[in-house]
Amino acid sequence: MSEQDASPTRRRGRGGSGARREARGRREITQFPYISRRIPLTEIMSEEGLATIEANADTILEEIGIDFRDDPEVLALWREAGADVKGERVHLPRGLARSILKTAPRTFIQRARNPERSVQIGGDATVFAPVYGPPFVRDLDQGRRYATIEDFRNFVKLAYMTPAMHHSGGTVCEPVDVPVNKRHLDMVHSHIRYSDKPFMGSVTAPERAADTVEMARMVFGAETVERDCVVMSLINANSPMVYDATMLGALKVYARANQATVISPFILAGAMGPVTVAGTLAQLLAEALAGMSVTQLARPGAPVVFGTFSSSISMQSGAPTFGTPEPTLVLVAAAQLARRIGVPFRSGGSLCASKLPDAQAAYESAHSLLPAVLGGVNFVLHAAGWLEGGLVSSYEKFVMDGDQIGMMQVLAGGVDLSDNGQALDAIREVGPGNHYLGCAHTQANFQTAFYRSSIADNNSFEQWDAEGGKDAYQRANALWKQMLADYEAPALDPGIDEGLRDFIAAKKESMPDAFA
Amino acid sequence: MSEQDASPTRRRGRGGSGARREARGRREITQFPYISRRIPLTEIMSEEGLATIEANADTILEEIGIDFRDDPEVLALWREAGADVKGERVHLPRGLARSILKTAPRTFIQRARNPERSVQIGGDATVFAPVYGPPFVRDLDQGRRYATIEDFRNFVKLAYMTPAMHHSGGTVCEPVDVPVNKRHLDMVHSHIRYSDKPFMGSVTAPERAADTVEMARMVFGAETVERDCVVMSLINANSPMVYDATMLGALKVYARANQATVISPFILAGAMGPVTVAGTLAQLLAEALAGMSVTQLARPGAPVVFGTFSSSISMQSGAPTFGTPEPTLVLVAAAQLARRIGVPFRSGGSLCASKLPDAQAAYESAHSLLPAVLGGVNFVLHAAGWLEGGLVSSYEKFVMDGDQIGMMQVLAGGVDLSDNGQALDAIREVGPGNHYLGCAHTQANFQTAFYRSSIADNNSFEQWDAEGGKDAYQRANALWKQMLADYEAPALDPGIDEGLRDFIAAKKESMPDAFA
Repeated sequence: MSEQDASPTRRRGRGGSGARREARGRREITQFPYISRRIPLTEIMSEEGLATIEANADTILEEIGIDFRDDPEVLALWREAGADVKGERVHLPRGLARSILKTAPRTFIQRARNPERSVQIGGDATVFAPVYGPPFVRDLDQGRRYATIEDFRNFVKLAYMTPAMHHSGGTVCEPVDVPVNKRHLDMVHSHIRYSDKPFMGSVTAPERAADTVEMARMVFGAETVERDCVVMSLINANSPMVYDATMLGALKVYARANQATVISPFILAGAMGPVTVAGTLAQLLAEALAGMSVTQLARPGAPVVFGTFSSSISMQSGAPTFGTPEPTLVLVAAAQLARRIGVPFRSGGSLCASKLPDAQAAYESAHSLLPAVLGGVNFVLHAAGWLEGGLVSSYEKFVMDGDQIGMMQVLAGGVDLSDNGQALDAIREVGPGNHYLGCAHTQANFQTAFYRSSIADNNSFEQWDAEGGKDAYQRANALWKQMLADYEAPALDPGIDEGLRDFIAAKKESMPDAFA
Repeated sequence: MSEQDASPTRRRGRGGSGARREARGRREITQFPYISRRIPLTEIMSEEGLATIEANADTILEEIGIDFRDDPEVLALWREAGADVKGERVHLPRGLARSILKTAPRTFIQRARNPERSVQIGGDATVFAPVYGPPFVRDLDQGRRYATIEDFRNFVKLAYMTPAMHHSGGTVCEPVDVPVNKRHLDMVHSHIRYSDKPFMGSVTAPERAADTVEMARMVFGAETVERDCVVMSLINANSPMVYDATMLGALKVYARANQATVISPFILAGAMGPVTVAGTLAQLLAEALAGMSVTQLARPGAPVVFGTFSSSISMQSGAPTFGTPEPTLVLVAAAQLARRIGVPFRSGGSLCASKLPDAQAAYESAHSLLPAVLGGVNFVLHAAGWLEGGLVSSYEKFVMDGDQIGMMQVLAGGVDLSDNGQALDAIREVGPGNHYLGCAHTQANFQTAFYRSSIADNNSFEQWDAEGGKDAYQRANALWKQMLADYEAPALDPGIDEGLRDFIAAKKESMPDAFA
């Protein structure tokens, strides 16, 4: 057998009558711990190149400055720290941000309510979290529609059921059927109630951030929350070079509660950043340095993550594009920049512009996810479920991506060089011209030898055809339904849940519904 | 605008009335030269790990040995070289193969009949070549069917029309409508007639290899062929640890004509190799060392490439799987091993097990192609068109993959750190809170700023829906038809073509048709 062999039957019958049909019934979930990488880092930029980007970021901070809007308190913090504040524009002397960031931890643990699910953020760790933010959902049966709290709970359950999904995430979709001023309560409660993995908090208003922290205290205890990170939250810069009051308000609440923030410039190059990779890198580094510094001014030592969401726009239509080479270069180089600062790094995910979970979606997603893993991203938001430029959470794509992140976990584990891994005795046993199908080493490693995909169809054409000729979209449709059918909620102390429900009810009663 | 922004309308209207609609008419082809990488290599194994693999390969060669079947001449060559030959089994003293391989060139040029299309094999170069070997083709209109010589010519034309496809390849599909003992003549002629990119020769019998060399002499001149590489050919080991007479016969013809061979162990781990990465690596290194050595014994200095085709089988069904993490680890580590020997390396491609060009196909292909590029593979066979484990050449997947390799070419080019690339003046011009859409730097770089996908739909949901809601498969169907409609053959000296046709006619008349 070789690439030369033209016989269409060459692969039929291998495995033969002894081959076992894959059991597709109820699965036992073995949850994976967060990834501790055992492969070297992929890097794309030289030390000299990185130094150039850093110098340019310092020039941006010093000469152009960053706007911190509608937040006099933050401007006062900057003045105290030695920045030159003109109106709302803050100019940072070269090196000031790096100096401020010396109090930020290189790595930290985000605790989950199940201690086995706690994750390390930073260092050699990589943590996968679901899609964040879409107002729509899509599935094969009902198509595209506004998301509801039921969808939200479903995605929390699917994340819980996905072994390599280490984190429950945050706004897995926007439950638009719940008033905008109250939905954060149901979202945080859903993460706590339907999962035992770590989760993210609300950032849409400072008081909603405060509610998140309060609910976390009810689960973990106030002392634990004061000491340890139990909530992580996403703070976006309003690129280029602006932070607004909403984000700054939430940032301060979390930092002062000793909770983690992910400070993420959100740059679509060509619109919110220059059309070049090196230009985008300098701008995002400047924005991240400025934003991360505010966390340390608010509370020195508060855990903070250097975040990057960077893609490009189509120069023809202005629409965002994903999975193209330029954002990959930005991602990998930004990870290098974060390591030089000495803070954890967030980027990547299974990003795509496609409207369907088709080949476009998969190519684009793979070209965002794999560079993130190889490049050493510590916190990979949007690791599963993202569709249509982030406007849609897709049920089918969630489980497709969930399969891919399982593969990434194996990849990051590197090569087993034990005697069993070297397998010299197997090679001796089999010898030239024979096969390994039944040899002792194969039998001993049968169960765990290779990653076993939950979505891929590797059968012969004839068998696949006889089974209905389904594509990956159709197979994924069956899988997520099976996962939801198999779902069992993790145990939660009834007293804690009751306390949370009372808190939510009281909060909801205290204000009228708002929908904008 | 940020990840927080839940408004479904947030992306509508960007680019506005000034945005240009993408012109989808007849394209001018700008062919890309082969890739000269400007990014660092991704590696996954330590020096210590590599040394362990090398020691194990030496143990395999010395202790277990390699079978060279039905070829007394090769056995005699091995005896002369100092190997211990017992029957057809050759045992190599430790270090013998490396010593023999010192005459192999580190890099070489394969000439194309158009000098602008000549490619470097080895070093910092990466060259993409099409799918090789499938007996079937598939397109959206007609489904799956046996390949014909018309399909063969179509794929040669599509490769010619794909800017980042640097090579015309070899058996882009098996033209089963032409007798098996004569089809190599039509295949080689098609590569010469319908493309001006470099190509691969026949290996299915020594006399067919000789025909290939003879036809190359008619195109390039006998002196050039004696001096330079003008044909590259694929020689598979019959893993585990066997070379057969057909492959050895072709190998000797090409090596003695100073033409390049790609010596490729073809290992589906679990069937033709151990179920572990380290075990597979040791076996494939041993097989490659032994096979490459034969080229140098036949003609010292003949160009030779370390090839690897490695994937796994499903332990449930025995079917080959692709895009899983274990073969990725094998690929990247094998590239490291080849660099230590000092020979060019072939692996990778857009491999998949899927029966359709769907999300499965794309995930799997991306997870084969991107590691090949990042890992520094020099010759990437199967870079486009591969479907169904290599049983099918897919028209739609060919153009999808052709788009992806264009992206890989940009990625491998790294980051532009010129003043224009750094774009500091653009950042100064725009400033906080504004946008880059119309700034001078964006306008100056408008045309070339970002890779422009030929397949991706980045439009809004509403526009995509209004245009028929097509998936990537449907869009690719339209694209390959357009490419074939736009195809114009490169000029070929009528005298050369006439000579080739006469040669082919005489050869065909000299023997009866054979179909097996």
